[in-house]
Amino acid sequence: MDDATAGPLGGLLDDPPRVITAGVELFETTLASQGVELVPVDWRPPVDGLAPELARIVADPRTEGANRAAVERITSAEPRWVGITTAREAVGIETGQFLHAGPPITWERASGPMRGALIGAMLYEGMADTPEEAEAIGAAGGLELTPCHDRGAVGPMAGVVSPSMPMFAIENAAFGNTAYATLNEGLGKVLRYGAYGPEVTERLRWMQDVLGPAMDAAVRRLGSLDVRAIIVQAMQMGDELHNRNRAASALFVREVVPPLLEAGIDPSDLADVVRFINGNEHFFLNLGMPAAKASLDPARDIPGSSVVVAMARNGTDFGIQVSGTGDRWFTAPAEVPDGLFLGDFGPDDANPDIGDSTITESAGMGGFAMAAAPAIVRFVGGEAADALTATRSMYSITVGEHSHFQVPILEFRGTPLGIDVTRVVRTGTVPAVNTGIAGKVAGTGQVGAGLVTPPMQVFAEAVRALAADARADA
Amino acid sequence: MDDATAGPLGGLLDDPPRVITAGVELFETTLASQGVELVPVDWRPPVDGLAPELARIVADPRTEGANRAAVERITSAEPRWVGITTAREAVGIETGQFLHAGPPITWERASGPMRGALIGAMLYEGMADTPEEAEAIGAAGGLELTPCHDRGAVGPMAGVVSPSMPMFAIENAAFGNTAYATLNEGLGKVLRYGAYGPEVTERLRWMQDVLGPAMDAAVRRLGSLDVRAIIVQAMQMGDELHNRNRAASALFVREVVPPLLEAGIDPSDLADVVRFINGNEHFFLNLGMPAAKASLDPARDIPGSSVVVAMARNGTDFGIQVSGTGDRWFTAPAEVPDGLFLGDFGPDDANPDIGDSTITESAGMGGFAMAAAPAIVRFVGGEAADALTATRSMYSITVGEHSHFQVPILEFRGTPLGIDVTRVVRTGTVPAVNTGIAGKVAGTGQVGAGLVTPPMQVFAEAVRALAADARADA
Repeated sequence: MDDATAGPLGGLLDDPPRVITAGVELFETTLASQGVELVPVDWRPPVDGLAPELARIVADPRTEGANRAAVERITSAEPRWVGITTAREAVGIETGQFLHAGPPITWERASGPMRGALIGAMLYEGMADTPEEAEAIGAAGGLELTPCHDRGAVGPMAGVVSPSMPMFAIENAAFGNTAYATLNEGLGKVLRYGAYGPEVTERLRWMQDVLGPAMDAAVRRLGSLDVRAIIVQAMQMGDELHNRNRAASALFVREVVPPLLEAGIDPSDLADVVRFINGNEHFFLNLGMPAAKASLDPARDIPGSSVVVAMARNGTDFGIQVSGTGDRWFTAPAEVPDGLFLGDFGPDDANPDIGDSTITESAGMGGFAMAAAPAIVRFVGGEAADALTATRSMYSITVGEHSHFQVPILEFRGTPLGIDVTRVVRTGTVPAVNTGIAGKVAGTGQVGAGLVTPPMQVFAEAVRALAADARADA
Repeated sequence: MDDATAGPLGGLLDDPPRVITAGVELFETTLASQGVELVPVDWRPPVDGLAPELARIVADPRTEGANRAAVERITSAEPRWVGITTAREAVGIETGQFLHAGPPITWERASGPMRGALIGAMLYEGMADTPEEAEAIGAAGGLELTPCHDRGAVGPMAGVVSPSMPMFAIENAAFGNTAYATLNEGLGKVLRYGAYGPEVTERLRWMQDVLGPAMDAAVRRLGSLDVRAIIVQAMQMGDELHNRNRAASALFVREVVPPLLEAGIDPSDLADVVRFINGNEHFFLNLGMPAAKASLDPARDIPGSSVVVAMARNGTDFGIQVSGTGDRWFTAPAEVPDGLFLGDFGPDDANPDIGDSTITESAGMGGFAMAAAPAIVRFVGGEAADALTATRSMYSITVGEHSHFQVPILEFRGTPLGIDVTRVVRTGTVPAVNTGIAGKVAGTGQVGAGLVTPPMQVFAEAVRALAADARADA
């Protein structure tokens, strides 16, 4: 205050008032009729009695700038597909070592689909000849399990990565960092949904022997492929890039076919490759997810930032990582998703929420971009209006908007970007997440798709951690 | 009236009234507050003083059933791509004979782009060595010009078809009829926008020698391709299938690549083919248009039907054909479209409306499906909300809704289908049409894209013709 003689409130009413209104609408209406400048906010009491913690974070002089920097870094990312590599090279794992989705987990606490995927991966790697042998190895503590996120990777559903699998390498050209994901296996009885057995193993071998080398040949001829450009286009073509990747997958195919044709690959193999990708409208998910991670990783470790840099589930726990709190995971029990079920499956068959694919929501895609993809309600349930509501409500918990990912029906407004744990706690609104649903029994595979509610507790714990570390000085 | 003793109004007020309200909203509000059942209608005085003619058509006992039958036939169509043929075989033209877009036209009355396309086609067919020679042939009456529609074909923009051109054959499997269109050349200096010269000729030759045979090989291996299924999907992926065919073209590519790979085509030619289609997001237009015509043709010649079965423009006149009035064209001067212009072009460079592509609107696509394609406003101008408004307003001039073409954002409501000339005249609302804009000088090519207003006069004339032929007896 520059007028030291005026007392603590001096000058407050010298200028026309600007009033922030919250709650009772009568105040707002009355003031507005008197020509007062209003800033209506959707205020509710913060959850869990965290008002003091929120106040400390708001008072931290670093917070606002740190959050702005985080969003600026995410939105200026330039994810490009630059290569195909093996998990052995890309994420440094050897036989007996596996990556998995979500925060850290042990065999003992692992859910059915997570164990099923690990069993399938052991069979694929030749560590066991039967599921029973594989299960015994797991139960005996014979596996070394590491979260994908700890090794610069992401994996949908169980997200199990074993050394021999080919992986997409996605480089963020604006920052120089790289993220990895395996290639998408398609739907039905697939490893990522916890299925295992000859059909799963055979497909993984074909992916290793034919699909991976074909993708490698394509990207070598392309040099690199602009993944962000495909996401931008696909979002104007009804994809939200988490559970709807139909346009993105079609756009991807048409980019890789000409270089594949020129690479001298056996035409019959090539026809198989194109049919495989055509038959899987989620193929692009495994490019979009590492693109999201490559975009978010430069926003990590900004002191004071309350922006979420990863949300991930392992089928038992839901976890988040926040920019200002380093690699620490805030976890709570994962909820069971609710949605549409395949065939005779129902809610009782559903495993709790699983997969790293919530990296899409963290990066302004998925549930945050559902307004761009109203047709997704035919896959996850609900009505088209719900898709609009999902996106609109996320602006209340994000720091900014994506400058490239635009939603035509919202007059090309950028998608909500930069989940702020303080806003989640203050508004009581958790991130909108749509997801595939895995069967809870190992070996079942996918049973449905729907929406899931992240546990408020993880955001509350992150707020406590940020508050404990907040600075009071300017 | 079954109570013959009650006089002409006897019994009218015995039951609770059902009131049709129009205009002044006060009536509606007051009656509604009294619990009266209301049927509000958006009534305006019919244009051109045509109330007596409208009354005669409404009184015609055939009208309602005929219109219902027309829409039923259109919506139950099953358009499939079944082959590639030459114009010579498909539409029966020989050297010196040309098809063109829109209602009948002569060289004398033809606009710049129509003459330009005819000049380009003469050069391509070897009828002339220079544009000047070609122009002299045209001016001397050396060409025989026939509307595409008269030969079961449709053509975008100038729509010029010459004997050597390959054509898509689209069969309506539900009715057995077939419609044809040439293959789309892409954007820029192309014949259909009235450009001619070596670049145009060379591309047309390549289409004849490489692209056409490749498409022929693909469709022979496929047997047939379900064009309706692609349209249905594309409409859930942000296409309206007139000026936005991005998703449909990508879906088409992914269907034809595997059979092309297996057909033993030279991989380098095949890469050229895929790149050519990939580089042209309007490629599918030339499948969607004949699919629309194949769907509409069975709705022709239903006595008493006031449903439009074709809207088409030749760059000079806008014409429509109506089910109940046979092959008669109702024409009026075409308007100049308004929209977004390419580069340095502006409204002064624009030719009046041209092309058979309004067959899409006639079949529940294009401007009638714009709500499915809000991103199109970046191509034709306006805001995303305008795209919603365009579709919504068309329900007031159509007989029904398409049972397959659904708009996700409108909760999967079917697109408005079956333009009823009586409703157009009664409401004063003309069909919403989006369109490419050709340069008015022969040889220029495309100058923009936008919206255009069909002339009310053609609908009014159709109403007069239907009224003159209406039956008074039941």
